[in-house]
Amino acid sequence: MSTSGRPYHHGDLRAALLDAADALLDAGGDGAVSLREAARMAGVSATAAYRHFADKDALLAALAARHFAQFGAALAGRPLGDMGVAYIRFALARPGRFRLMFGPLLQRSGQHAELSAASSAALHGLYAAAPSEEAALRAWGLVHGLAHLMLDGALAAEEPEALIRRLLLPPC
Amino acid sequence: MSTSGRPYHHGDLRAALLDAADALLDAGGDGAVSLREAARMAGVSATAAYRHFADKDALLAALAARHFAQFGAALAGRPLGDMGVAYIRFALARPGRFRLMFGPLLQRSGQHAELSAASSAALHGLYAAAPSEEAALRAWGLVHGLAHLMLDGALAAEEPEALIRRLLLPPC
Repeated sequence: MSTSGRPYHHGDLRAALLDAADALLDAGGDGAVSLREAARMAGVSATAAYRHFADKDALLAALAARHFAQFGAALAGRPLGDMGVAYIRFALARPGRFRLMFGPLLQRSGQHAELSAASSAALHGLYAAAPSEEAALRAWGLVHGLAHLMLDGALAAEEPEALIRRLLLPPC
Repeated sequence: MSTSGRPYHHGDLRAALLDAADALLDAGGDGAVSLREAARMAGVSATAAYRHFADKDALLAALAARHFAQFGAALAGRPLGDMGVAYIRFALARPGRFRLMFGPLLQRSGQHAELSAASSAALHGLYAAAPSEEAALRAWGLVHGLAHLMLDGALAAEEPEALIRRLLLPPC
């Protein structure tokens, strides 16, 4: 039951728990996400939340999968320069989501089918836009590195999107 | 006084505390570093440790400065390809050090003169090896991104050093 007294439909509660977890993630990073707190925010008992997610890892994996799906949609079908801009925009707008998606969870994505599928699909779009696998890896490494350097404060860029676009052009 | 009963010379205790903090960092990341624990490992009181470092931030900044100095020495005077290899080797060998150096502390390096000088010197070496500022930034972003993607498990590379060298070559 929700606090309003109306029971959630099955899929609605799952989505409500993910929305709550997202708010926790945006506010404090993945360390701030807890299944109990997400349940409290959605107005249900922890027991009800555990019916959807076995543990915090499962919740975070579902959250990362959701963001990889959005990330993939933001990248899909664009030329490489636009894709780089979309990549950096996503990272700078929501650092918590970006760090979660590319954090240690990804190493365990074999245990999370939804995350594995969503991350593969997003990265497949990136590879499809590049003329070769090597070019894709060069572009991916570059935008990922610049995103981290900017997020972590090692590099200050006044116009990050213009910079990414310029650097993604072949240097010769 | 150290546990052996012999007092430390001033510089020796500072170095001993940094060595202890390094061991904590390598074992558990920067969250595992504490001034009290470093003091205990060096066999001195917390009070003695506080004479060298005002707080944990100061200890971590001194540690990051030490590693930027080593990192800078590993990079200095090499051609760009070798520098990329040294960069990735450093990151993969000591992830805790790499994450500390390029972590949130760097944003506060204005408060830590030693860290600011050491990081600037290391990155100056990188810029000096590239034919232009844009080429330096492209190379830095690329190796930094690949280092993160490998460390975080998003990218598996059987021969990371050969990969870096290949990708750093201009694509045309």
